[in-house]
Amino acid sequence: MILPFDRTATDPASRARRGSILTPHGRIETPVFMDVGTHAFVTNCAPADLAAIGTQVVLANTYHLMLRPGPEAFRQLGGIHQFMGWPGPVLTDSGGYQIFSLPGDRTITEKGARFKGYTNQQMLLLSPERSIEVQTAIGSDIMMVLDECVASTSDEATTRAAMERTHRWALRCLGARTHADQALFAIVQGGIVPGLRRQSAAFLAEHPFDGFAIGGLAVGDTRAQREDLTALSAELMPADRPRYLMGVGTPPDLLQAMLAGVDMFDCIIPTQLASQGTAFTSTGRVRLKRMQNAVSEARLDEQCGCATCRDFSRAYLHHLFKCREPLGPRLVSLHNLHYYHTLMADSRQAIERGTFAAYAKRQLDAIDRHEHSARRFGQT
Amino acid sequence: MILPFDRTATDPASRARRGSILTPHGRIETPVFMDVGTHAFVTNCAPADLAAIGTQVVLANTYHLMLRPGPEAFRQLGGIHQFMGWPGPVLTDSGGYQIFSLPGDRTITEKGARFKGYTNQQMLLLSPERSIEVQTAIGSDIMMVLDECVASTSDEATTRAAMERTHRWALRCLGARTHADQALFAIVQGGIVPGLRRQSAAFLAEHPFDGFAIGGLAVGDTRAQREDLTALSAELMPADRPRYLMGVGTPPDLLQAMLAGVDMFDCIIPTQLASQGTAFTSTGRVRLKRMQNAVSEARLDEQCGCATCRDFSRAYLHHLFKCREPLGPRLVSLHNLHYYHTLMADSRQAIERGTFAAYAKRQLDAIDRHEHSARRFGQT
Repeated sequence: MILPFDRTATDPASRARRGSILTPHGRIETPVFMDVGTHAFVTNCAPADLAAIGTQVVLANTYHLMLRPGPEAFRQLGGIHQFMGWPGPVLTDSGGYQIFSLPGDRTITEKGARFKGYTNQQMLLLSPERSIEVQTAIGSDIMMVLDECVASTSDEATTRAAMERTHRWALRCLGARTHADQALFAIVQGGIVPGLRRQSAAFLAEHPFDGFAIGGLAVGDTRAQREDLTALSAELMPADRPRYLMGVGTPPDLLQAMLAGVDMFDCIIPTQLASQGTAFTSTGRVRLKRMQNAVSEARLDEQCGCATCRDFSRAYLHHLFKCREPLGPRLVSLHNLHYYHTLMADSRQAIERGTFAAYAKRQLDAIDRHEHSARRFGQT
Repeated sequence: MILPFDRTATDPASRARRGSILTPHGRIETPVFMDVGTHAFVTNCAPADLAAIGTQVVLANTYHLMLRPGPEAFRQLGGIHQFMGWPGPVLTDSGGYQIFSLPGDRTITEKGARFKGYTNQQMLLLSPERSIEVQTAIGSDIMMVLDECVASTSDEATTRAAMERTHRWALRCLGARTHADQALFAIVQGGIVPGLRRQSAAFLAEHPFDGFAIGGLAVGDTRAQREDLTALSAELMPADRPRYLMGVGTPPDLLQAMLAGVDMFDCIIPTQLASQGTAFTSTGRVRLKRMQNAVSEARLDEQCGCATCRDFSRAYLHHLFKCREPLGPRLVSLHNLHYYHTLMADSRQAIERGTFAAYAKRQLDAIDRHEHSARRFGQT
């Protein structure tokens, strides 16, 4: 195994696991939330800022980085860690999801995806081999296979065809790997069809991938479907390797998925909501643009230990958003990411203590209660 | 005197002075460059960031702050230091320059300026008394009188009328002050007419202002005019009180004005150029968007001790600007402000040592040389 994964504890009342993954750039304590740094930066946060809020892993994107700065720049500059000044682990997504989700001309064949690059309008090919070549140049600790995503609303034949192509591409990625110190994760597809998810997990589990991801969720499915398919997929994945739920989700999504045995997560929600002025707090979401915050001396979250809560009132954060000042999204992004990392650290501790199922239930109930009371008072 | 100003050294070969001003929020070592925080923030920089780069004073603006968050918010929240989390000295400009420079309907009469606020489209009055009332609510350490600016290209009669009104308004401001711990500076006007500048300085010097500013420059005048009028105005201002050159300028502007005996400065140039990707360095200006930086492992300035230069290559900063990522302007703003504060700290030290005239000449020659060589190599 390229990527040593130690499972150090299992929750007695759920499938939740506590573990650690050893990468060339340090140990990742799992379960872990990874910060989204698509273009080799987490928006308006420098690596030193991330280190201060408990970030363990930065997730970058092959599709975007092959366009800018391009693989040649990474080769000349010694890889992404050196480039962005982040000494910790980096995971790169393969670009499969971007080919699926970004607008514009693209043709997907067995060879790969042809698309027009947004930086210079040239036609480019992203094949399994090319994705691995670019990820090798980027120098990430964990690479992802190129997969073919389809909408959750696709018919079963379309979903099956994409899944089967994803399997063939996964094996081509495995064959294309040249650097033994870069781990490679496979991606389970199969849409919202339980039988296909089972097939996909079973097929991929037969091959020596370093970890397994659940792809193709949060693309048109309901929360209930997402929870069921996550639980089903996680159960079918090898227990001795990390399980990664891609692009999901809210704090309740994370808690449910940890209960189902998922180890790794990423999502744009904490930074995206921050850019709109919405903060996660121990008493529910706070929408900073609302007038009720205009002269509030209260902290964003009196329970929180982050620098934003230490240094600023809600009134000042409200003012920053009213002025459309980038310091507002920055301070709330750091707070929201700190909130996510604290949730994960508390979850890790609860799994170690064997009390995670009860902890998760308390958290889920509290979030539910805050959301109901917010709706009752017209705050959602 | 409300604002104790100690002059601790004078340069033997120029009019440069070394001093310190004691405010209710700490001591200001002069000469000083003040960071522009118009709306109660320095764009994308938190107070902790400013403390780390050597910022001593933040300059906020009465015109903008009376519109948002408004004086009532400051009264409820305990003033600007508490509001923005900046424990150090704050200077507020009166809004005179904004009335002059901002587009839109406004009528200036002896009473004051009537204008339509951009937050709620209501008609508002900014009179000398109202400006002091708002600055009192803001709670700045140093307030500025409301003045009437005119373009440097105005005829002499217009310039004289504005100067005379500025004098009457200055006395009304002095009469309107209610809080003995807030200092008040007068503003010398008179456009580019030496005789008017002399009259203005002489008139204002007869009254108990805590400091004197040179206003109405960098509004259409040439660099040579600016230098001559600065020297002329500074010479006529009382030696025992601080002299402040408003809204000026580049590093050479600052060096020239210090040679003429000016103690305080503010300017948007370091942050404005940063937003465009231009950095001040010990070897001249660096334009980060240029392709020559795309794979440069060099630091922005190998001589610089700021966090941006410690943590990032030019290639990465180039990438941030290519991606239009706000982290780029943030990192270069912090570097540029650090550059300005280092220039001022070095200047203070040179004045103490009695070597400032020679230091300033070396700096001016070096900047000149870099600009010439940049032009020669097509880099400007």
